[in-house]
Amino acid sequence: MSLSYESSGVRYDQLDAFKRACQKAARSTAGELAAHGYEEPATTRGESAYLIEGEDHYLAHVEEGLGTKNLVADAVYAKTGECFYDAIAIDTVATIVNDLATCGARPISVAMHAAVGNSGWFSDTKRMALLVEGWAEGCKRAGAVWGGGETPTLKGIVNPEVIVLAGSAIGKIEPKSQRITGEISAGDAIIFLASTGVQTNGLSLCRLIADNLPDGYQTPIGHGDGRTYGQALLAASAIYVDFVVQCQLAGIKLNYVAHVTGHGWRKLMRLEDPFVYEITEPREIPALFKFMMEAGPISLREAYATFNMGVGFAAYVAPDAVEATLAAAKAAGHEAWVSGHVKKEGGRKAVTIPSLGLAYEADTLQVR
Amino acid sequence: MSLSYESSGVRYDQLDAFKRACQKAARSTAGELAAHGYEEPATTRGESAYLIEGEDHYLAHVEEGLGTKNLVADAVYAKTGECFYDAIAIDTVATIVNDLATCGARPISVAMHAAVGNSGWFSDTKRMALLVEGWAEGCKRAGAVWGGGETPTLKGIVNPEVIVLAGSAIGKIEPKSQRITGEISAGDAIIFLASTGVQTNGLSLCRLIADNLPDGYQTPIGHGDGRTYGQALLAASAIYVDFVVQCQLAGIKLNYVAHVTGHGWRKLMRLEDPFVYEITEPREIPALFKFMMEAGPISLREAYATFNMGVGFAAYVAPDAVEATLAAAKAAGHEAWVSGHVKKEGGRKAVTIPSLGLAYEADTLQVR
Repeated sequence: MSLSYESSGVRYDQLDAFKRACQKAARSTAGELAAHGYEEPATTRGESAYLIEGEDHYLAHVEEGLGTKNLVADAVYAKTGECFYDAIAIDTVATIVNDLATCGARPISVAMHAAVGNSGWFSDTKRMALLVEGWAEGCKRAGAVWGGGETPTLKGIVNPEVIVLAGSAIGKIEPKSQRITGEISAGDAIIFLASTGVQTNGLSLCRLIADNLPDGYQTPIGHGDGRTYGQALLAASAIYVDFVVQCQLAGIKLNYVAHVTGHGWRKLMRLEDPFVYEITEPREIPALFKFMMEAGPISLREAYATFNMGVGFAAYVAPDAVEATLAAAKAAGHEAWVSGHVKKEGGRKAVTIPSLGLAYEADTLQVR
Repeated sequence: MSLSYESSGVRYDQLDAFKRACQKAARSTAGELAAHGYEEPATTRGESAYLIEGEDHYLAHVEEGLGTKNLVADAVYAKTGECFYDAIAIDTVATIVNDLATCGARPISVAMHAAVGNSGWFSDTKRMALLVEGWAEGCKRAGAVWGGGETPTLKGIVNPEVIVLAGSAIGKIEPKSQRITGEISAGDAIIFLASTGVQTNGLSLCRLIADNLPDGYQTPIGHGDGRTYGQALLAASAIYVDFVVQCQLAGIKLNYVAHVTGHGWRKLMRLEDPFVYEITEPREIPALFKFMMEAGPISLREAYATFNMGVGFAAYVAPDAVEATLAAAKAAGHEAWVSGHVKKEGGRKAVTIPSLGLAYEADTLQVR
């Protein structure tokens, strides 16, 4: 039987009822912005970052968390002494700032939330120093200042041996024309930017796989890649802010960008309007994902619906902007390629990967 | 033996090493602000909110958490069915926005971070709805929009039956002259604003007290107050943003304000410069605190060093601004009074309460 994300214990349905209630209540507070000289843009709720519209700029606000990836770092550290908390910190910053960048905002300030169950967590000075170093490095890669944070001890709430990592960012779009609004057209090219590995999504399933391996995270992933499973999982996430900034500097109009996180490639159809996103150049499956698909086992269909499969960020641009967009990605140090196109097929909304025989219809994605 | 806060298991020393490392690394990222047209004000690190200086305004950023107060709500709910999650949500928003207001910033947007160990937490629709309702109400009281949030399921990190509540705020100070800088003088009046109860500090100790009571949170607190211990603890925190806004609208110069949280009244000497803060009108000890001092037992000295003792916010103003400040507090619906004065006694830094025979010298407070 193929492993699925639901089998790793995460149930989106219960969370979704809460999220819907939050969005409804949150909308009822929009009137508070008037006294500050701001207003709420009509379409910001449900996007990856919350935008606040001023006369000549938008402010952007994101609160995000790492998820459970640090449990992998904890297990590897306990077994091998190799400490990846610098990468874990970069991962956390990446989840925050990549979400912010999807609307065209540049992060100005990133704050840390690090909650422990026992303040003794910080007595491991090596791990503590790597966490601090990585957070600062993540902020620098995002072009943002590290603007404070909070480090509570939550005895009886957080398990004593672990840490909860999360944080927030303030960003800005100025001029307002740099906002990425999600107005795409049939014929737009879809440009993929490579990920460094799983980044921060699907980790519950990754951990379930490790539990079923005799050597756990020490298992070599093979397929020409010399790393162990743990090392490959713990590669620090890519930060895509610099790509968005390079596009803005070059005057490129990004019609839409998607941060490929939970729900894997289904995230490519995050916009409401019905389009078909046809991926003709999906890239060869990276070694880490091949290994997980075999070890799970995980079907091809489930893998692309859960993991980023080597793609962390997608940009949708008009055909005449393709070359400049690829150049912007290269200037920011990202591997990028034209992966496919946006098509119109009546009212159909789907992500298709013909060369792999995969198609995900609209009803397989509920993220709003 | 008198109970102390350290006896409830919170060790500030291990956290402090981490916080110092964070502040040092965070300062190294300040150069990132230049590309955004901002810079870091010299004195912002270590204040309750992180400020970012622009040409004609400051942005403010706060990340804060509730702490462990929800464990009290959980215990009361399990025993009596009375659900205080609306108050718990207001508490969380209050911790965030009150910190922001201490520098003179008005919160524009507040985001929620609600992490659970099991998504089943949200299947209790009554509790879930109260949490949502309270968060929206807190935002409205703070004059801020509810700008999104994050609700991760952190299996193996957060205990399955509880929630971690935290969040962040974006704020602004405009014009820049409304920044509260902490320039106080001997002779300044200290104006106290009442708290509603413990608000969000000292909760670990509060819970320890409940553990030692035969009827736990169901124990009546007496002293003329008809509530049980649980009910009194779970009164929603006051939000003081409206007080700061009223002062700004009235053109009152607030030389300094202190949000009385952890470390109790020792927080009154949060500024670095050596002054003596003499409190001559401490108010009668509210019933809840009398009850806890008896039940602990907790000494008078420990009580004022841990809890807010009925005072949630303090404003330091020149003598000629006293009347207007009291009027601003009243306009915002807060009980307020002149509690004492700032004095100069050479290099001494201390908080003194002569009528109670209490004096806390500088070395009893390390918060930076």
